[in-house]
Amino acid sequence: MHLEKHQLKPADDKHMLPFKENILELIPSTHGGLIRKTSQQYSIPLSDIVDFSASLNPLGSPFDNPEWDMDLQDLFATSFEKMGQYPDNRYLEYRAAAAFFVGGGADAVNIVPGNGSSEIIRLVAGCILNEGDEVMIPQPTFAEYEQQCRVAGAKIVYYPVESLFSISEDALESARVLFVCNPNNPTGKLLAREDILRLAGLCAETDTLLFVDEAFIELSDISSTVVDVAVSNDHVFVMRSLTKSFALPGIRMGFGVASETMAEKLNTARLPWNMGSLAEEVGCSLMGMEGGMESAYLNVSRQKITEYRDYLIDRLSDIYGFHPHSSSVNYILVDISELLMDSVELTKRLARHGVLIRDCSSFPLMKNDFIRLAVRPPEETDILIHTIGEVLTESGKDYAEEKLKETIKGVSSGCSSSRNTCEYYPCHFEGQDCTFCFCPFYPCEDTRTGGKWIDSTTGSRVWSCEDCVLVHNSDVVHRMLNILMEDGGTEISLKKAWDEVIDISL
Amino acid sequence: MHLEKHQLKPADDKHMLPFKENILELIPSTHGGLIRKTSQQYSIPLSDIVDFSASLNPLGSPFDNPEWDMDLQDLFATSFEKMGQYPDNRYLEYRAAAAFFVGGGADAVNIVPGNGSSEIIRLVAGCILNEGDEVMIPQPTFAEYEQQCRVAGAKIVYYPVESLFSISEDALESARVLFVCNPNNPTGKLLAREDILRLAGLCAETDTLLFVDEAFIELSDISSTVVDVAVSNDHVFVMRSLTKSFALPGIRMGFGVASETMAEKLNTARLPWNMGSLAEEVGCSLMGMEGGMESAYLNVSRQKITEYRDYLIDRLSDIYGFHPHSSSVNYILVDISELLMDSVELTKRLARHGVLIRDCSSFPLMKNDFIRLAVRPPEETDILIHTIGEVLTESGKDYAEEKLKETIKGVSSGCSSSRNTCEYYPCHFEGQDCTFCFCPFYPCEDTRTGGKWIDSTTGSRVWSCEDCVLVHNSDVVHRMLNILMEDGGTEISLKKAWDEVIDISL
Repeated sequence: MHLEKHQLKPADDKHMLPFKENILELIPSTHGGLIRKTSQQYSIPLSDIVDFSASLNPLGSPFDNPEWDMDLQDLFATSFEKMGQYPDNRYLEYRAAAAFFVGGGADAVNIVPGNGSSEIIRLVAGCILNEGDEVMIPQPTFAEYEQQCRVAGAKIVYYPVESLFSISEDALESARVLFVCNPNNPTGKLLAREDILRLAGLCAETDTLLFVDEAFIELSDISSTVVDVAVSNDHVFVMRSLTKSFALPGIRMGFGVASETMAEKLNTARLPWNMGSLAEEVGCSLMGMEGGMESAYLNVSRQKITEYRDYLIDRLSDIYGFHPHSSSVNYILVDISELLMDSVELTKRLARHGVLIRDCSSFPLMKNDFIRLAVRPPEETDILIHTIGEVLTESGKDYAEEKLKETIKGVSSGCSSSRNTCEYYPCHFEGQDCTFCFCPFYPCEDTRTGGKWIDSTTGSRVWSCEDCVLVHNSDVVHRMLNILMEDGGTEISLKKAWDEVIDISL
Repeated sequence: MHLEKHQLKPADDKHMLPFKENILELIPSTHGGLIRKTSQQYSIPLSDIVDFSASLNPLGSPFDNPEWDMDLQDLFATSFEKMGQYPDNRYLEYRAAAAFFVGGGADAVNIVPGNGSSEIIRLVAGCILNEGDEVMIPQPTFAEYEQQCRVAGAKIVYYPVESLFSISEDALESARVLFVCNPNNPTGKLLAREDILRLAGLCAETDTLLFVDEAFIELSDISSTVVDVAVSNDHVFVMRSLTKSFALPGIRMGFGVASETMAEKLNTARLPWNMGSLAEEVGCSLMGMEGGMESAYLNVSRQKITEYRDYLIDRLSDIYGFHPHSSSVNYILVDISELLMDSVELTKRLARHGVLIRDCSSFPLMKNDFIRLAVRPPEETDILIHTIGEVLTESGKDYAEEKLKETIKGVSSGCSSSRNTCEYYPCHFEGQDCTFCFCPFYPCEDTRTGGKWIDSTTGSRVWSCEDCVLVHNSDVVHRMLNILMEDGGTEISLKKAWDEVIDISL
């Protein structure tokens, strides 16, 4: 038989993979909430990790507090009974619950259930985009629009999010989909309903689908929703998520709101059983809470978020180099471009101490200048602020060590540091020696030098060198260099140099 | 501002939808397991429904019986703790558990986790197929290959499943993917490993991906798996599912096995958090059962399936018009082409009695001639057989009523039924009158006619007309027609005609 001659070639060459070009070029998207990864990486118990990287309702889920009268055991029991059966893949109850929850005239026929909101993004992208089609994504924003559109083979066109409302018909003309995140992630900015509606009008003119991601709207201002427009219109689609508002990201629950005809097609195209029994049951009971989006739980959530956010912004504003942006939701963007550390380093240093924040360097246009912080209860904010203090001190030491090496190297090669280029000169006194711009003994913790402990805004104590000028004295600098250059500035020579310096100061 | 002039057009025209042609043309796929739908439709309590339409392990889940030592409460508790966190989207534990479970040299890096197996089919189709690409699907088989390939915009080429091994290189040449279901759904046929390997060799020659769906293999013969080949080769991909083998379809759990490079790309392209905490936890504990695919639970499952299947086939074979095919797994295909009823009608009639079976008319090439039945415990098989008996009697009555109307109509218009075209003539005696081919009094239950009760193979009693020739007597026929044609054969005239007939027979 001729089939037998065929030998299977071993798998080794990436270029032999049968995938489409856009898939081969795909790189993993970056997200927050990597607490298990951090726990393993730094051997920190999960329960000791404080997570500011995942933007979840700071109240915790309604199951966490008896006040909200939600019986998880009961739900588990009902779900378990249903686990032995295929879910009814029409998901009628979940869709009815979602329609009740969002209001705006939505009915079960307008709802497309999703295994989390990412599946909804992927579904819509997959149903609309042919290879090479253009989509317009205002940046910075949630990474999954781009990722899922790349999976669909689309061409991504960035647009600065702050210019969204001066966008022209011409600019939109070739875009099949325009993604708008409201409130926007990671900026925390909420767009007014009227502004979204004007965009929708423009999209109708250019035959572009306006995809409005309202994943966080229940934790912001629900009056900005455009669900009612999505229900009656084929140019507007609204995406919602339950995982953030109800702090249950381990249960994947999301949905889309669309016109009946759009929803029908999307329901045909989605996976037949995309939600498991538990997600279906829990989703129904969360959305069925009395009052819907105005439930006591969500009302208190919004109040607490405002309160906690004010506290977080207040505390951060006091730290040099931290510039928090204003926000309408349960996360804030912080500009740290003036900090000595960039966002990658700050994130890594905090993670080592068990505090997770979201480094924004993976967002287009944000460089390494921004971090995103979830709004958390004050006691967690205090931990964050205290840990930032520790990390700043620690990095100050590391920076001084590095500078010492640079200084020694510079002096050896004859190009000593020059005060001519320093914008802070003279930081202590006219004529000071700037060889040791950063003190290699910091923090010496020896008050005989003139240094002292002061209370910092982070709640911890900081060693202040304001009144110490020792290392800017030319004589001291020369003696120190003589010693330190013997062995390139090891611990031993640093100790010897310190003895010499302190001897002079006494 | 010029944006304001744009008005939103209302949603009304299907052709205005922004979707791709292949999505607009999509029709919903058909599946079994619609027990909630049936319960609502016929007002039958869920617990009274016997489901032969969903092919699940007849032993029930390992949580159903303390014998298997699985603690669901414990799992729920752990999962709940994790529900407040995003799942670690690398799914390292689940992937390691899956690798252990399938064996064949697989490692966590070879595993692609899936929210049920349908998501895996969709993922692979979406990563490989451009619009218009060809895929080859041997028919009949599981509907989701076609559905998910249509979502990806592919062109579907059918191939008769029985000719799979005489497929030529030429026939495969233009196919990007060849789907093989092993054991095949709905035929229950298991392909030998060597045969799959020969196909794989052919696929390597034509640069076609061989997608092997092993969703049911743990309930069949695990030695047929080609997982080991998928691990080391870029032309073979294996899909697995946990929902069938462990009878937990309400928890969506599946995975793919591929070469490390393929799996890496697929993991990048899949949804970031496609599995929730519960699916992850439960999946790990099921796959971690001692012995893996050779666990006591799965060994007993396979034994029981063989036993239960023999019983089901035995009982069915005794019923006229039911021809069960042989099977290697927990479902059987039944040819009912010789039955008076077609598969659609049989399915609907059984559903009204709370017994669900899988009508195969949605499978290409199967017409209305086949049903698929899950292998269930004997007590459920007895219910099935008994209900089939009821449905046959009921349909016999309905058929006779319908025939009576036709007969009366035929006689009125002068074209009485002819015995010249009947292949069964003479069924009772030479020269018999065939006007009432079907007796309008069936089952009269009156032994004075010569009729009698006999024990049927379905376990119920059946009224036999073998020894009654009354309605084939020309004189009787004429008297009956005179009465019945007065009012078109209502209950009243039928009663009157009966009195006349019984009068003659006495």
